[in-house]
Order: sequence, then C-alpha cells, then structure tokens
Amino acid sequence: MEAITVTTSKTTYSIWFVDDLSPKVGELKSQTEKHALLTDTHVSAAQAELLEKLFPVFPRLVLPAGEATKSLVQFGHVLDFLAAQRLDRHSLLWGLGGGVVGDLGGVVAASYLRGIDFVQVPTTLLAMVDSSSGGKTGINLAAGKNLVGAFHYPRAVLISTNFLVTLPLREFASGVAEVIKYGLLGDAALFAELEATALTPRSASLLGIIRRCCEIKVAIVKADEFETATDGGRALLNLGHTFGHAIEQVAGYGAYLHGEAVAIGLVAAARLSERLGYLRSGDVVRVERAVALYSLPARLREPLAVSDLLKTMQHDKKVRLGQLRFVVLKRLGEAAIQAGVDVGLVGEIWREIGARWFLRPYFNSLPA
Amino acid sequence: MEAITVTTSKTTYSIWFVDDLSPKVGELKSQTEKHALLTDTHVSAAQAELLEKLFPVFPRLVLPAGEATKSLVQFGHVLDFLAAQRLDRHSLLWGLGGGVVGDLGGVVAASYLRGIDFVQVPTTLLAMVDSSSGGKTGINLAAGKNLVGAFHYPRAVLISTNFLVTLPLREFASGVAEVIKYGLLGDAALFAELEATALTPRSASLLGIIRRCCEIKVAIVKADEFETATDGGRALLNLGHTFGHAIEQVAGYGAYLHGEAVAIGLVAAARLSERLGYLRSGDVVRVERAVALYSLPARLREPLAVSDLLKTMQHDKKVRLGQLRFVVLKRLGEAAIQAGVDVGLVGEIWREIGARWFLRPYFNSLPA
Repeated sequence: MEAITVTTSKTTYSIWFVDDLSPKVGELKSQTEKHALLTDTHVSAAQAELLEKLFPVFPRLVLPAGEATKSLVQFGHVLDFLAAQRLDRHSLLWGLGGGVVGDLGGVVAASYLRGIDFVQVPTTLLAMVDSSSGGKTGINLAAGKNLVGAFHYPRAVLISTNFLVTLPLREFASGVAEVIKYGLLGDAALFAELEATALTPRSASLLGIIRRCCEIKVAIVKADEFETATDGGRALLNLGHTFGHAIEQVAGYGAYLHGEAVAIGLVAAARLSERLGYLRSGDVVRVERAVALYSLPARLREPLAVSDLLKTMQHDKKVRLGQLRFVVLKRLGEAAIQAGVDVGLVGEIWREIGARWFLRPYFNSLPA
Repeated sequence: MEAITVTTSKTTYSIWFVDDLSPKVGELKSQTEKHALLTDTHVSAAQAELLEKLFPVFPRLVLPAGEATKSLVQFGHVLDFLAAQRLDRHSLLWGLGGGVVGDLGGVVAASYLRGIDFVQVPTTLLAMVDSSSGGKTGINLAAGKNLVGAFHYPRAVLISTNFLVTLPLREFASGVAEVIKYGLLGDAALFAELEATALTPRSASLLGIIRRCCEIKVAIVKADEFETATDGGRALLNLGHTFGHAIEQVAGYGAYLHGEAVAIGLVAAARLSERLGYLRSGDVVRVERAVALYSLPARLREPLAVSDLLKTMQHDKKVRLGQLRFVVLKRLGEAAIQAGVDVGLVGEIWREIGARWFLRPYFNSLPA
C-alpha cells in the first residue's frame, strides 16, 4: 500500500502501511549507529517474539502500560535511560506501543539533547489513526492531560495491522471511536461504511481505512501546523474530545478508555450540533448506533456531576478567555468550530448523556 | 542604544539594551492578559523594590538560586505553577534572573501547552551575553548538564546593566569569562579592550560590550540555527566549554562558577591551540593574563583526576562517534573546529592546568 509522505515546515517523513515490518525496520536500523527502544509491559508480553526478531540488540526500556506512564516521573526515567545508553544527537529512538508510548516517547525525543529522531511503531488502532502522526507529543500534569509537550515530527511511522490481532477487543473498539471521528468530521462515506458493517481486526478493509484516517489527519495538520488557526484547522481533530477529556478527568483516568470517552463525546457533540440547528435528530441516532455497533458507550456508565464536568471544560487548554468553544458537525462528514456556546446548553447536553447536576441529594451534602 | 533584531526560521524577536526597563515592560504587559514571573531567591532579595514596581500583580514563583534548580523536579514545579495559574497559550512567562532561571524558564516555556511566549530579563552578565538569546534552553540530568531542552526563541530579551551593580563581584567576573570568550572567538579588538583595562559593573563601555557579544552570538546562531553545522557554526560558541563542562562535572557543580570553569577552559583551549601549531606562546600568556585581570582562575584550584576529566569529555554531547572535537583558536579573535584530537595530548593539557593522572599515590589505591 502506498506510503503517505508528509511535508512540514521542518522536515519530510513518511507513514508506511505494511504487512511485514522487517524491510523498513532494517532500512532505518542501517541509517545510524545507536538506537534505543521504548515499549510497554503489554506489548512486551504480547509481542515478545516479534521484538526479539526485529530488535534483538537494541537497549530496551519497558514502561508500565497505562496513561499514568505519561508523567514527569517516567519522562525523567526515559531521559536517564537514554543518557545511560549514551545516545547522541544522531541516534534513533523507537517507540513501539500505543498512544502512551508514542506521546511520552515523542516528548523525550523532542527534548533529549534538544531533539533526536523518533520512529513510531503504533501497536493500537488508536495510535495508528491518531497519535502517531501529526507531530503532537504530550505528557500529563495533575492539572490535566497533555499540558506538557512539543511539536516534534517522527522520522517515520510504520503501521502494520498485525499488532491489532492480539489487541484486546475493548482496546480495538476504543480505536474505532477515533475512526468514527474521522468519518464524522471529514468523510461521510467512511462513516457510512463504519455503521454498515462492524470493522474487526481481521477486516480486509482495515489497513485502507487506517490509511484514509491518516490522510484526513495529515491534510488538516498541514493546513495548521502549529495549531494557530483561529477557526477550524487542527482544532477540528478535537471533535468529541472536549467532552471526552472532561469525562476522563472527572471520572478519573482509567475509568474509561480514551476511545470510550471520545465515543460519548462524539454523541455529545452530535447532540449539541442538533441543538444548534445543524444536525437532524436522525443524524444523532446514527451516531449513537454507530458507536453502539462497537460496544462503545453512548452515555456515561455512572453519573458524574455536571458542575465538575463544566469546570474541567473551562480549564481545558482549548478554552480561551473563558469562552466555551466546541467542534460541531455542520452535517455528518463536515465539522466546524462553534465559539460562544452557552454554558447552560452544554449543561443540558451533559444531563442528556447521563450526568447529574448534583450527585447526592442536597441534604446529604449538609454537615453531619 | 539600538536593539538587535533577530530573525529566525520561526520568529523574529529583539534584544533591547535599556537603562530603564519600565517602558518596554509596560509595552509587553499590555499585549496579553495573563502573565507569570519566574525568579530566584537571590534576585528576589536583591531586587525586591524593582520587582514590586515592575510586576506588582504577576503571579510569581521564586526558585532556589543555583544550578541544582535546573532539574526535572523544579521543571515539574514550574509547570504545575503555570497550570495552577491557568496560563493559556497566549500567556506570557517572564524569566528574571541568571542563566538558571533563563534556561529552566525556557524549557518550561517551550513545553507548557507545547510552547508559550517567554520574555528573558537577564540579571547576570553571563546571562546577558550568553544564555538569554540564541534559543537554546536546557535542564540537567544526573548524567550531565543541559541534556534536556529545546530550541525556543524568546519573545524579547531586555538587558539593563542596573542589575549588575548589586551582583556579587565573583559572579560579575564569571560573566566576564564569557565576554573574553567572544573576544577570543570573534573579535580581537574586544579581547584587546578587555585585557587593557578591567571592566567593572559601572564601566561606561559595559552596555556596548554586552551588545557586541550579543551581535557575535546572533550572527553565529543565525548561520547554524539548529546546531547542525558539521564544521564551525554554533559549536564555536563552545570555545573553552568542553574543558569547562568537564571541570564543573568532575569537581561537582558549585565548586567552580560556570564562568570560572570556562576561564580555565579558555586557557586550556589556548594551550591546545598552541600545541596544534596555531597560537604562539605569547598568545597563551595573553589569555592567562586577561583571565587573571578579573581574578578568574587560569588553572584548577585543586587537582582533579585526568582520567575522570577525559571520561567526562567523552560523554559530552558534542562528542560524536567517540572522536574528541574541540574549538581551537586559529589566532586570537578567530575560532575553528578541530576534530580527531589525540586523547594523549588532551591529557597533557589537563596536566598543564593542574590535573593529575592519579589523585593518590598508587599504593594508596591498593586494597587495605
């Protein structure tokens, strides 16, 4: 399958879509002397044989799987590891894993010796379609997700669907949420395909669909490389994410997989778009059904407090001067930015998808 | 005095040379809504009145003074502080202090929300001539100095020599070491001026000399923005620093001020240049005398082990493929890169400036 070549202000790199990783890995290995490999405990266990075959001698750091790894503490551990391995400016860091390995590895590659090259080998559907290209890297602070990072493009992205066969189905479905997002924001035909027949890790169409998502992302990123567009641009990729991030943060990271929170967020964005007069109610039902086809949630599993969710949204880094801005759907397949959204309306949407104004009756919150 | 305008691939900023900071600070304050100020305990104590006058309402974080602050731990503290103050992408971070505040603040500004604007107000001579412009930011790992960072240009640099009057003289002299460096690497007339009459914090010529150093630096940086030149380029700014960094690391940070280690490094670089046939012995004497004029050391105060110093040099991030590369002087006022320098020769230079092959007699190192 044809690679996608991405040209940015700084560099040109390619996203490769392959069955067998060996030739491309071999080519990149031959280009420099020193390498180091980041992965996580899950990938290390599930892909032990592949790791031995592809990277038999690389120094390897196995990170704890999970979002908690996107921390300053692990950032420091990885940096110390690279320094101990004496990686120099011409060395290559490889990230083999999901979004956590890719995002943390990207921040490390952006900052170790003020920047070294990074090859992304995403092992989850979510990382393949979303986090591995585009150059955004990030780690979390207590105050919120991805508050620290850099724009740092990978040297190459290698995508092979073989990893997805051993991925837990719940993780796979979480990735489909992002695929649905791409359909909703930029490709009505893709959305129609996703709602017609459930995509599986063995679907013959899968690699092509991943490639389509990458194409959409690359085109959006190219038009707004540093996220400076005041209308549209990279912000469109956040469809469903302003709601989704609030859910993840208020419920506590780990309660929902990222894609699960995004799925609810997509439904919320569709509902908001309907209330603003863009979508018809039938469109919202289509979004809910598409989400449900992959066993993704369309509403909160347990109620969260609307007040907490709104407060979190207001701290979101995409909020400027206290104004609530959302990515809305003009129609299925076309997204746009809507500024100045009324907080009361957003609160109503939260209630429709399962949040409550108060989690406990008033008298329970009085001092004993 | 005329500002220096620096045009880079990403942005344009100016270095201002002023007596009174107020007008320029006021102008920058009016350009955005949210600000935060980083400084350190020394500056906060010495400049309390000025801070109150210039920045009465900014949220302010006072960092411990000293190199130990350039750590991942303090990096995290500053990030948490900015998040707590809810700085957004359009906010402005101010760094008022020496190289530590500037370097750490720069890394924070480069990575908080993937990059916010940073105004540098250097309060030490060293920061004025060296670290505040050029876009290099950095923090330290246990394995070495400035191993983590980014290229992130300031929004503006404001230079006022008023800060230097309250600076301890030893700190001022440490800054002069970098001024001497600029003379040696690019301006023989400047070097001659520095060796003829001792510069003081109240010298009428001081602001102009600082400006001259910034001009030299900016010209070098412009020609090699991302330090990718294989010959010359930014690496020339490291004259004396390969030796200097080794001294700082082996002696333990704090044993020598940065400029003191650089002063010894400049003498070492001059000696090496003589041994390689570029300088005459009279040139080396001039460098030693210039350094001595400012009470800067020309040799190690206490012996260090040559083996430790050489090992540290080989780990230096400027070393590639194990080869020792140095900035040497073709003549006083002109620097060049010399690759493939013999380790034995470097060891001899170390001995000439006070290092010993072994710190203890051999029999003392035998097991008891």
